[in-house]
Amino acid sequence: MKAHVYVTLKQTVLDPQGQAIHGALKKMQYQGIEDVRQGKYFVIRLSDALDAAAATAEVERIAKEVLTNPVIEEFSFHLEDAD
Amino acid sequence: MKAHVYVTLKQTVLDPQGQAIHGALKKMQYQGIEDVRQGKYFVIRLSDALDAAAATAEVERIAKEVLTNPVIEEFSFHLEDAD
Repeated sequence: MKAHVYVTLKQTVLDPQGQAIHGALKKMQYQGIEDVRQGKYFVIRLSDALDAAAATAEVERIAKEVLTNPVIEEFSFHLEDAD
Repeated sequence: MKAHVYVTLKQTVLDPQGQAIHGALKKMQYQGIEDVRQGKYFVIRLSDALDAAAATAEVERIAKEVLTNPVIEEFSFHLEDAD
């Protein structure tokens, strides 16, 4: 099983990296870009020994305790059956 | 409209950052983790003046030309109607 975890800055937190990309895209004449925010993306391959409920619990715990700084970031994730 | 862009290292490229996270998770007694790979995640808010086809073309161009290093990375993206 594979988990895809997305960690982003909270909406209320300034994202200077995203703003820099936005500014660069504008200078490079890309059209219609209103905002860019950058986050992190993790792909976690899980043992097949875990069932869906255990995998969900484990990934949620990892995302919350290790991958995310809860002061400024939030996360979401989904599981998929591995290829 | 919002575009979600995921940039990951190609499967054949070593991901030391992901390996470091994997090692840390093992030391912290998390169970059933077989592999971790880290990528980047971008949320791009697009002008409503762009229709779906124009938005797709623009986001694909940005992902290919700016956000991704084609030598070692690959990308995927999807669009969603903004809230």
